[in-house]
Amino acid sequence: MIERLCLIGVGLIGGSLARAIRRAGWCKHIVGVDADAAVLQRAQVLGVIDQGCTDVAEGARRADVVLIAVPVQAMEAVLSALKPVWNPQTVYTDVGSTKLSVVEAAQRVFGSVPGNFVPGHPIAGAELSGVDAAQPDLFRGKRVILTPLPETQPAALHLVAQLWQCAGAEVAEMEPARHDQVLAATSHLPHVTAFALVDCLGREDETEAIFRYAAGGFRDFTRIASSDPVMWRDICLANRGPILARIQSLRQELADLAALIEAGEGTALLQRFQRARQARQRFLAMFENNHNAQ
Amino acid sequence: MIERLCLIGVGLIGGSLARAIRRAGWCKHIVGVDADAAVLQRAQVLGVIDQGCTDVAEGARRADVVLIAVPVQAMEAVLSALKPVWNPQTVYTDVGSTKLSVVEAAQRVFGSVPGNFVPGHPIAGAELSGVDAAQPDLFRGKRVILTPLPETQPAALHLVAQLWQCAGAEVAEMEPARHDQVLAATSHLPHVTAFALVDCLGREDETEAIFRYAAGGFRDFTRIASSDPVMWRDICLANRGPILARIQSLRQELADLAALIEAGEGTALLQRFQRARQARQRFLAMFENNHNAQ
Repeated sequence: MIERLCLIGVGLIGGSLARAIRRAGWCKHIVGVDADAAVLQRAQVLGVIDQGCTDVAEGARRADVVLIAVPVQAMEAVLSALKPVWNPQTVYTDVGSTKLSVVEAAQRVFGSVPGNFVPGHPIAGAELSGVDAAQPDLFRGKRVILTPLPETQPAALHLVAQLWQCAGAEVAEMEPARHDQVLAATSHLPHVTAFALVDCLGREDETEAIFRYAAGGFRDFTRIASSDPVMWRDICLANRGPILARIQSLRQELADLAALIEAGEGTALLQRFQRARQARQRFLAMFENNHNAQ
Repeated sequence: MIERLCLIGVGLIGGSLARAIRRAGWCKHIVGVDADAAVLQRAQVLGVIDQGCTDVAEGARRADVVLIAVPVQAMEAVLSALKPVWNPQTVYTDVGSTKLSVVEAAQRVFGSVPGNFVPGHPIAGAELSGVDAAQPDLFRGKRVILTPLPETQPAALHLVAQLWQCAGAEVAEMEPARHDQVLAATSHLPHVTAFALVDCLGREDETEAIFRYAAGGFRDFTRIASSDPVMWRDICLANRGPILARIQSLRQELADLAALIEAGEGTALLQRFQRARQARQRFLAMFENNHNAQ
């Protein structure tokens, strides 16, 4: 339990964590920092934060834990603003969707990553955004990946793990580069693909006529195309290499399937679809196991 | 209301329609035809059909309506088996996911499409299959596209429309080629893409480690990769041209996005994602309107 949390970036993720730890009674006072004063006011009305502040350095002062919940491209600016008031007694962590870029930003700002900064990423998909969508159960049964470095202080790592556990999440550890590879496959590629497919269709003259006959499968397939465009631009730029490799694999796979369809190779096509279905069933079994275990 | 329905192919779609019209009291007696006697037995135990039969011609005898609910590649064989007992007093319809291929199969079998055959397609996505998954509400609030030809008898068209309306569906009419174009965009392309993406990941050594960190977004995006592989092989082969064109567009779109990511073109990337998100919101508004209206 801590006295004072500073939340930098009062949106869906930060707001939901604030709600969760407040409910768990893990923290007495929550200060929100956001560039947008209207967001702070709204967050205060909603009871997500106790106090708002538009200045990073001022907001972070006297906090036991500083949680940075901004799009990944804004991370370096936030770390730079924190640098003059960086406190060895405080534990810092973030929720950025890519981790190598955050580690590199910290290295650029501090020379090396401070031992009391624990990079992290809660894997909680939600196509909503903004503090109004914040809800205390967002992380229940979800995984949070922390990517500590050799220089990370064990006590800092432990406190951040506790923070997430008290929100109901399951904490795992991973190297930053590995995190980025895994997430490129399971999150970044699907998002880029959903955006690509919807944009393809949305640009046509007949979009409305086409959408009218789309079913529930299309709705689910494209759900993630409703995600925050700024966040996803940032992720694409921050995790370029792994995402580009994944896009290339998918393009190749689509080319292979197209060749089989064109040649009428029914047997080979069936084998691919069966293999895909089996893989999907394996994933689903793991997913449900994990979520039922919570 | 009719006396006798013959259902050829006792699976999810046919079984669900049988359950719906039985509940609505629209039909007194339902005969199921399936190559698999165990399926017929199961369907009888479940109360989906009153009587089972493994022979198409025998099962269709004396039916007022014959509903053909088999994968599209099997359509021609079923029509050929029906030809010797084709009854001008009976109305025939199908539920094939592609329509031009069905029309062409009928042309090959009969010379021209019989006036009492009404090609149709219920747009009810479900990744489940088999008669055990059949449920009477599957079509409630869903769209059914009928693709009558100039030679289609108005009375036959009317009866088939009634059949679907009594299952709670909303009936629309469209030309067969147009149907195939629209569905290639909103259904066939997403399915092929989901299969492709899951197959990509499922073939890797580290699949399990990757899947472990996949979230709800991945689950929804890949839901349709759990669909019946045989049905989707058939659809791909039956609607080759439109599907190949759509795959090509998506590959191009992915290449464009990859180029923007590689060049770090954040502004252009953001514009694309925003445009996609807006298109997705337009679709969602239409989808929800339609479903709430039911």
